[in-house]
Amino acid sequence: MSTAVSPLAPPDVPEMPVITGVRLATAAAGIRYKGRTDVLLALMDKGTTVAGVFTKSKCPSAPVEWCRARLKGGSARALVVNSGNANAFTGKTGKASTALTAQIASKAVGCSTSDVFLASTGVIGEPLDATKFDGVLAQLAETATPDHWMDAAKAIMTTDTFPKVATATVKLGKAKVTINGMAKGAGMIMPDMATMLSFIFTDAPLSAGVLQSLLKAGVEDTFNALTIDGDTSTSDTLLAFATGAAAANGAPKISRASDPRLKAFTKAFQQILASLSEQVARDGEGARKLVEVVVEGATTKPSARKIAMSIANSPLVKTAIAGEDANWGRVVMAVGKAGEPANRDKLSISFNGIRVARSGARDPSYNEKEVSEAMKAPKIQIKVALGLGKAKDRVLTCDLTKEYVAINGDYRS
Amino acid sequence: MSTAVSPLAPPDVPEMPVITGVRLATAAAGIRYKGRTDVLLALMDKGTTVAGVFTKSKCPSAPVEWCRARLKGGSARALVVNSGNANAFTGKTGKASTALTAQIASKAVGCSTSDVFLASTGVIGEPLDATKFDGVLAQLAETATPDHWMDAAKAIMTTDTFPKVATATVKLGKAKVTINGMAKGAGMIMPDMATMLSFIFTDAPLSAGVLQSLLKAGVEDTFNALTIDGDTSTSDTLLAFATGAAAANGAPKISRASDPRLKAFTKAFQQILASLSEQVARDGEGARKLVEVVVEGATTKPSARKIAMSIANSPLVKTAIAGEDANWGRVVMAVGKAGEPANRDKLSISFNGIRVARSGARDPSYNEKEVSEAMKAPKIQIKVALGLGKAKDRVLTCDLTKEYVAINGDYRS
Repeated sequence: MSTAVSPLAPPDVPEMPVITGVRLATAAAGIRYKGRTDVLLALMDKGTTVAGVFTKSKCPSAPVEWCRARLKGGSARALVVNSGNANAFTGKTGKASTALTAQIASKAVGCSTSDVFLASTGVIGEPLDATKFDGVLAQLAETATPDHWMDAAKAIMTTDTFPKVATATVKLGKAKVTINGMAKGAGMIMPDMATMLSFIFTDAPLSAGVLQSLLKAGVEDTFNALTIDGDTSTSDTLLAFATGAAAANGAPKISRASDPRLKAFTKAFQQILASLSEQVARDGEGARKLVEVVVEGATTKPSARKIAMSIANSPLVKTAIAGEDANWGRVVMAVGKAGEPANRDKLSISFNGIRVARSGARDPSYNEKEVSEAMKAPKIQIKVALGLGKAKDRVLTCDLTKEYVAINGDYRS
Repeated sequence: MSTAVSPLAPPDVPEMPVITGVRLATAAAGIRYKGRTDVLLALMDKGTTVAGVFTKSKCPSAPVEWCRARLKGGSARALVVNSGNANAFTGKTGKASTALTAQIASKAVGCSTSDVFLASTGVIGEPLDATKFDGVLAQLAETATPDHWMDAAKAIMTTDTFPKVATATVKLGKAKVTINGMAKGAGMIMPDMATMLSFIFTDAPLSAGVLQSLLKAGVEDTFNALTIDGDTSTSDTLLAFATGAAAANGAPKISRASDPRLKAFTKAFQQILASLSEQVARDGEGARKLVEVVVEGATTKPSARKIAMSIANSPLVKTAIAGEDANWGRVVMAVGKAGEPANRDKLSISFNGIRVARSGARDPSYNEKEVSEAMKAPKIQIKVALGLGKAKDRVLTCDLTKEYVAINGDYRS
């Protein structure tokens, strides 16, 4: 495992403010790692609502199944996250393990197990020994404090090279409300896969339904428009919690997603998701370049998305970016294989604003030296203009380097 | 570019017999390479029928469009293949270039341009100067001989590390007929992509319709069940030619695909396609392991194919194989993301016959040492039993190594 921080890590880390109604604590439970924290307990005051979106995998982890079933209640008091073991592909013991973890947490917090949410990331196929949480969670519940955000973001890391946090403060009605978020991204632990976990907290008084609507709409152009290697973890989890504490300062209670007072909040919420998902791309395994794929002139947005994903997931495009090569031929290939409407002779392709191809052939003004220079930048934008319609979309990814292969293939050698 | 022959190259190369009615010649036209042949001319006697299947790319190369349009005629007299330039993404000049090449060939051979078939592989986005064929093709037409098969297979190589040929002789009626095939596989030339070209020749008297049926059915479980990196070239071309010369020896003329006399021929034809497509997998860029993914117990064959392809294209699975790691967790992940019916708790997974997981958890008999030893083999079979139905399918691929990234990403550095 590399310990060097990704060269794409954001230079500035925000100060994370308190969210009234949320307390955090972390511990080293020795689930797999030595000498680092691996359990996060988040405590939420009574009245906290919850929403979630999860992996689309047909083989989800036990914690994903646990959370999906508990979401119906709409209320949450505790979130337990562990790194080191994903509790995935663990058969019936996996289910028993989530139930035991929730039981230990519910006792520690003094709430129903149906108000306990769980997420696990790490090795898969190994039974998770939930008895390790016994004692630990009770102690965490006692020591939890409101100002523990960076520690929390660190406790959920696996091979992430930096903790990922974002925060925003906006007006809801006339009151100030705060949104904090954290994420862990494309790391892997042998023998495991990349798993994305993210948790958002706010003191805004939002119903569970409103929160779910915000989340569902919010991920569409952020976490769902992100790919590292096209592989989908069995454990991907994004949960949002709203304590409602800002109601005490006069924030209006929002129970309809269409409420016009939500406008600024929605925008800030979306920005938090955008920031966290971009940070995940910046910490892609072995990543040396952040890659933004923009497809415009498509017949529909889903069509633009599919083409953008085809480009973003193409190993040949990703290795070209790693080689600082403005290889538009591979971009044409990826457009062509997407199966969506495309006309070779109308295609234009730019790298970082420099058009290299137009009308299905090399741009007459193409200047190899100028393009080569531009490809040295740490952020590369590939823009494809299809010339068919008015729809556009955007996807984030990273390059494919030898380090990716080393991280994912070398550890047995 | 590496010049070392893939460690997965077949140890034995067959003697390629003559196909009556086919003559071959190669030349060094200097299209891109120095010191090697880069043009193949195949001449077919009058009465030769033709069939073809092509890339599904929405942005096909000019030669693909040329061949598609000419297939309707059903007859062929000449095939011109060049390496070094793919004549893809070359706009209107690409179309003009195919027309000029066909014109030069038709003069050299003395046939209609509608009987000329073309394939190009190599750099894309560069205009192909078809005037380079002037003179060359006329000379090739004069010097063509029936026994030039290995030279032909070499002339169409790009970054292939070995020429790919296969041959079979079977009875059609009471007469002996022969099938010869050649292919070039997943190579790339800067700035280009992998392109698969394959050409099959037989002296069997088959109508164009029969040949097309054989080809369409034959690729389904061979070339279409093959993936190197999930990327689809704009130039993939597979053409089959039947000279009918064996009719002189008493071979029956076959004009219906359902003709029972075709049985042995169909089997041999399929074996040629299987051999060539496996050779392409064995020469995947940077490949060190041939990987066979078998999915059984699926609800339908297309569902099994989709799951097998999801596994075969997963960078995490492919890097694990490169690392000789029987990482069944990543296989579960790839099953889950395929979106097809799957039940985590019914899954069984084996590597080279050793079951590592069953009923959605690690196999109790799992022996790390035994599995690790098995993973050192040059051919790895991943078998997934879904436990849902009776359908099965199989896909071939190779591992993902640092050499793949080096071949595709390093050349600018």
